[in-house]
Amino acid sequence: MPRPPHFSPSVSVIPGAVYSSQAERMRAWKGELYPLHVGDTWLSPAEGCRMEDLRAADHPELHRYAPIQGLPSLIDAIVERTRARTGVATEREDVLVTTGATGGLGAIMGALLAPGDEVLLLAPYWPLVAGIVASFHGVPVAVPFLDVRGPEELLAAVRAKAGPRTVALYVNTPNNPTGKVLPRAWVEALAEEARRQGWWLIGDEVYEDYVYVGEHVSTRALAPERTFSAYSFSKAYGMAGNRCGHVVGPTEAMGHLRKVSTHSFYATPTAAQVVATRVLGSVGDAWVANASARYREVGNEAARRLGVPPPEGSTFLFLDVSAHLDARGLPSFMETCAERGLLLSPGPSFGPFPHHVRLCFTCVPPEVALRGVDVLAGLLSPRRPVSR
Amino acid sequence: MPRPPHFSPSVSVIPGAVYSSQAERMRAWKGELYPLHVGDTWLSPAEGCRMEDLRAADHPELHRYAPIQGLPSLIDAIVERTRARTGVATEREDVLVTTGATGGLGAIMGALLAPGDEVLLLAPYWPLVAGIVASFHGVPVAVPFLDVRGPEELLAAVRAKAGPRTVALYVNTPNNPTGKVLPRAWVEALAEEARRQGWWLIGDEVYEDYVYVGEHVSTRALAPERTFSAYSFSKAYGMAGNRCGHVVGPTEAMGHLRKVSTHSFYATPTAAQVVATRVLGSVGDAWVANASARYREVGNEAARRLGVPPPEGSTFLFLDVSAHLDARGLPSFMETCAERGLLLSPGPSFGPFPHHVRLCFTCVPPEVALRGVDVLAGLLSPRRPVSR
Repeated sequence: MPRPPHFSPSVSVIPGAVYSSQAERMRAWKGELYPLHVGDTWLSPAEGCRMEDLRAADHPELHRYAPIQGLPSLIDAIVERTRARTGVATEREDVLVTTGATGGLGAIMGALLAPGDEVLLLAPYWPLVAGIVASFHGVPVAVPFLDVRGPEELLAAVRAKAGPRTVALYVNTPNNPTGKVLPRAWVEALAEEARRQGWWLIGDEVYEDYVYVGEHVSTRALAPERTFSAYSFSKAYGMAGNRCGHVVGPTEAMGHLRKVSTHSFYATPTAAQVVATRVLGSVGDAWVANASARYREVGNEAARRLGVPPPEGSTFLFLDVSAHLDARGLPSFMETCAERGLLLSPGPSFGPFPHHVRLCFTCVPPEVALRGVDVLAGLLSPRRPVSR
Repeated sequence: MPRPPHFSPSVSVIPGAVYSSQAERMRAWKGELYPLHVGDTWLSPAEGCRMEDLRAADHPELHRYAPIQGLPSLIDAIVERTRARTGVATEREDVLVTTGATGGLGAIMGALLAPGDEVLLLAPYWPLVAGIVASFHGVPVAVPFLDVRGPEELLAAVRAKAGPRTVALYVNTPNNPTGKVLPRAWVEALAEEARRQGWWLIGDEVYEDYVYVGEHVSTRALAPERTFSAYSFSKAYGMAGNRCGHVVGPTEAMGHLRKVSTHSFYATPTAAQVVATRVLGSVGDAWVANASARYREVGNEAARRLGVPPPEGSTFLFLDVSAHLDARGLPSFMETCAERGLLLSPGPSFGPFPHHVRLCFTCVPPEVALRGVDVLAGLLSPRRPVSR
């Protein structure tokens, strides 16, 4: 019973800001900055899809509440696209427009979890998902799969962490932070296991448009009766500040999700939804085609300079830096980076990975990102010991 | 353990949409529509504060993530205004910008509540607050105070519902739905009781700018060490679709609120925050002065036509229609209204009020709202029995 000055026990265990010590170190640096810890894009939104392109005269409801499920025109466009991309029967009722994929995953967890319920998270995972589970008093359970080599090993890893309170399995593909695109056989194995065990399946597919090797396999296509797939206009079209994403899931579940989203953010910002409707057409397709080519190019070059395999998808590389850590471990390494103007995300934000760092190669223009990569490559060079 | 096809028990008890049966009835009506169930304004945002007024050239970060606490310029403006209005020492750390007051109240409840904790809600209350408490597995406890005549009776009502699991007390003034502005002595009594009992105090002050009789008393001014006050740019400045509000609270609590908000909606939409920064100046003050005068005029006229006291604040009237109900009760009455094009909010959305309806007199232009009021006045006339 957290009366003042005590707080919710589940929120108290969520980690807070992880960048303060880095930010402090970086203040002393007078050179160029490389904030490669942010998952974002340097590209501006497509022509006609900026705020200044929206005329109140064309959209009289632009500054008023949108319907809680989303703007009808946007829902129609999402239904059409979902049917075309996944081949799964999809109706308007199966769609919820949300304040980014964050709001969508919140609506999913809020609708599903009783206090103490466990959610298996294939790890490394998108950092916020563990806190979303915890904020609804669920228990996030990491399932490390970094070294898994096939569907059988993947299932063994999942089963090792499953228990009687497991209610759902979360999978993020294309993966943030690893850049891995899960092969079809892996996603099939996960869907079959979820069905066998009676679990919900949650697919975080915000990078579905950014696949450079192989193909994106939608989780929902394989077990539509139990699967929620979350998407993000932020990630797909370079409009993270707009806070617009969506969830598609089983019809009978969506009323419960709408209840949670109504009580989390009421409705998704109206202007963001008007813009999202616009980009779900040829303008957006062209933007994605250009962005994808440019992301791939800079991702491949970053990987080459760092001596790691090129990313299969997403906008990230996840690097094992264990050979370069001193007794103080990762914080010391990250402070060394920060003193050279380079910010990275620490591995523990993504699960039990105390010796990894994530870098985003799209959050600043390619030439800047690659100069940041060079700073890191220099620190990781075997000829140059890392020291502070 | 809600595995498919079961859901979170706390979400299952949150009521869903309440307007479907009314909407169905309304479809048969061919005349003018009066959607007075929506809490919104017919006015457009102030000059320079529409989306089309924002130039990406002036705001290069317009479509990118804002900092999770909010845009620095907006936080500065909120701090300055809060100090001026409340006289309470307020620092940047005490402020969180949120996706409307909904997101703000969610961040508060998520930060405070362990499963089973009880929150006292002075009732009638803003409809979503009970569901926000429930979505974080808390227990909303209504404290009816419609007939209370002074601070002593108010405290007696509060104590009658308090218990060992009570952790917080929620008060909404100016009140949605009643239009009541709580007198200073009442708010003082609540603050003293919260301090005596060791409760948090939550002030929902989204209508602080719309007071027509008496003065608004900020809850936070009376017990700043334990009080969170929630505000809304939507309500103050006619931009509900932007989804921007804010919370001010005790410094040591705000880190916990930021954790919940980060995991609910990540950050408040950037464009909405740029606009909010603009309205916190003379442009917004002028807009509010005009809106307030016009709201008061239509509110007074609506009250006169319905034969009830004029609203003291907010944009609502809350009417006891018990004398006009048949055996089927409120749903039947509301369907009768809907058949004449008039939508109202049912009393039970605001607490234990089975014989009340709420109407918003600002959601459509005054002349339309008043024609809707006339429909209701006709149904409530003692000379005309309500029948379907």
